[in-house]
Amino acid sequence: MIEWFDDLELGMRFKGGEVAVTKEDIKRFAAEFDPQPMHLDEAAAENTAFKGLAASGWHTAAMAMALVVKIRPFGPHPLIGLGVDELRWMMPVRTGDVLHVEGEVVELTPSRTKPQGIAKVKWTAYN
Amino acid sequence: MIEWFDDLELGMRFKGGEVAVTKEDIKRFAAEFDPQPMHLDEAAAENTAFKGLAASGWHTAAMAMALVVKIRPFGPHPLIGLGVDELRWMMPVRTGDVLHVEGEVVELTPSRTKPQGIAKVKWTAYN
Repeated sequence: MIEWFDDLELGMRFKGGEVAVTKEDIKRFAAEFDPQPMHLDEAAAENTAFKGLAASGWHTAAMAMALVVKIRPFGPHPLIGLGVDELRWMMPVRTGDVLHVEGEVVELTPSRTKPQGIAKVKWTAYN
Repeated sequence: MIEWFDDLELGMRFKGGEVAVTKEDIKRFAAEFDPQPMHLDEAAAENTAFKGLAASGWHTAAMAMALVVKIRPFGPHPLIGLGVDELRWMMPVRTGDVLHVEGEVVELTPSRTKPQGIAKVKWTAYN
């Protein structure tokens, strides 16, 4: 159980999940945030580079966040994101996929003045 | 109007919006994807580093995507994201904020074999 910044170590790993992706979720997210044919409609999606319905990349990121929050990698402390580097969408996420996430602590920067710090964690979502 | 990859130029700029952020939207997104106190409940959020309700960073990213899709920066062609570098959440997004986005083409990599390519666009969402 992580309680303090010093409880984190380089190479520490986290794992969590799962979430099943439904076509209703894909379409609902896309209708609000990424209304493009490959995310909205099975038939239209067949004629795109995705050759079928695929989740918006931002939907995938959001689903991964939901799994990360459940892991509570920092114990009772919140996940406050400063940013993300090198986000890559490697494969389409499809209806019926079951996602889980794995994380690894890759950088730890303690605060100079407080018993806290910045942890950089490499998160990967798998389908 | 952009129709071909060659129509894009380094330094080309895009601008679009706006979207008004509501507390209902903030809470609804958070309940599904980022259920932490600062995104879920005004009173609980007062006791967090945010000192009040703030949108999930992934919600902000998704709202920005919605604005980018409307701009149609590549004309009739879809926005297929390969990834994102250096995403930074600079300020909290609050109830009542009105977001718009601005973009600038910062890198163009033509395909060696097809009349297409990869455009890197720096997008900034403002509140």
